[in-house]
Amino acid sequence: MSSSSSGSARNSHGRLYLMPVPLDFACDTELDLGATMPMGTLLVAARLRHWVCESAKSARAFLKRVNGVVALSTTLQAMQFDELPREVSKRGDHSGNFDARHLLKPALEGTDMGLISEAGMPAVADPGSSVVRAAHDLAIAVVPLTGPVSLLLALAASGLNGQNFAFVGYLPQDGMARAQRVRELESLALKTGQTQLFIETPYRNAVLLQALLQTLQNNTRLAVASGLTLARGVCRSDSVRNWRRRDPLLDNATPAVFAIGR
Amino acid sequence: MSSSSSGSARNSHGRLYLMPVPLDFACDTELDLGATMPMGTLLVAARLRHWVCESAKSARAFLKRVNGVVALSTTLQAMQFDELPREVSKRGDHSGNFDARHLLKPALEGTDMGLISEAGMPAVADPGSSVVRAAHDLAIAVVPLTGPVSLLLALAASGLNGQNFAFVGYLPQDGMARAQRVRELESLALKTGQTQLFIETPYRNAVLLQALLQTLQNNTRLAVASGLTLARGVCRSDSVRNWRRRDPLLDNATPAVFAIGR
Repeated sequence: MSSSSSGSARNSHGRLYLMPVPLDFACDTELDLGATMPMGTLLVAARLRHWVCESAKSARAFLKRVNGVVALSTTLQAMQFDELPREVSKRGDHSGNFDARHLLKPALEGTDMGLISEAGMPAVADPGSSVVRAAHDLAIAVVPLTGPVSLLLALAASGLNGQNFAFVGYLPQDGMARAQRVRELESLALKTGQTQLFIETPYRNAVLLQALLQTLQNNTRLAVASGLTLARGVCRSDSVRNWRRRDPLLDNATPAVFAIGR
Repeated sequence: MSSSSSGSARNSHGRLYLMPVPLDFACDTELDLGATMPMGTLLVAARLRHWVCESAKSARAFLKRVNGVVALSTTLQAMQFDELPREVSKRGDHSGNFDARHLLKPALEGTDMGLISEAGMPAVADPGSSVVRAAHDLAIAVVPLTGPVSLLLALAASGLNGQNFAFVGYLPQDGMARAQRVRELESLALKTGQTQLFIETPYRNAVLLQALLQTLQNNTRLAVASGLTLARGVCRSDSVRNWRRRDPLLDNATPAVFAIGR
């Protein structure tokens, strides 16, 4: 597949592959890569030598695992890893008008390269869109590859409306502001039928869940998916009324996706 | 991975697997299944004998292709295919309070089963969420499997904000109503930074694109991804101003995803 902003891949540029990685955050590395990664994706991973990444360390750890299935075309030492600036990883690609064009030099010179994040799909609930945008602006073809995307697995598993949904990122940390935002999202979900998805850093999972159960209405449906694709993965979807009656069963170490709807 | 509304898979029920399928709509069947389907997903597909599907015909066509990679555990003739009612496929799971519990009888009796749609992930931009919801209500574990999801591939490839986005389904067909909806979505995207994604039946692709170019503002960014994961796949992302200057290059046969943002 080829794609570019010019609608033509007939220039001499290399391509930018969007490389998904497993959702285990390298904490479940005994997990078979083939469980969630198509061979087509692994073959591309093994071939590329130039990477733009969220973290060089986790990109290397992923490629080591790939090497166990498909031999890498070169050593990790011979590869180039350019990390996204901390600013972009922390505040998002669209906060400071970050110009990522300099990171795409290898592609401009004719070499295929990859964009990779720490878990899941780059540029989806994760940094990287500034790099993709720069590729379009430079007429570099962008090729997204198939792999696990926690948001979509969670949405599918939630039983909530998947024909109209929004992902809104993180909620405010301050208790008052968070409660207000939760009420706002609930009102939107109940009024329009649009499922509202959001995430939290794992160590605040339990705090967020508690806040949700305190703030949401009895009949609102709440789904929490944590550790999807892992052996300990779980998705619970129920009315808030029923959630309040049960052990919430949510640890503070596993990434989770939260969703509310009617 | 196991999951259920009760947070426990310790009952004797079978599980409901959410089975993604390739995005070629069986029109590119020479495409290698391994290009986009993880072996872990194909192994589950080959094992299941009970299916809830959008179309029995396309579910069988998919399983025939799986059989070329992993031998099916039984013949297609010996499998059970229950189609979702036309009403649900056409108007969505949440229009008429469809009760899908009767479709889950095999799982209640202890047999693993699958939910499958015609392309991509069931219950995401596709029917099926009523079946997933019924599973949660019956304490049947729901296991989403990894595979291609056109919406997310398109979002990643668009270079638009992937940390805040919404999928709103189809736009109105009437020209006036469509233009109004486009302006509404553009205003939301520009004001909040939330990328707005939508789809159209392929034969109306060109009409929708024309309407977008007539209605959107010059500086709004528009991305159109069509045929992702296919050889002819393409994603263009550019300002509306630049879109107007070029050949739109969009055919009326390939499924496309549209996205607007700032």
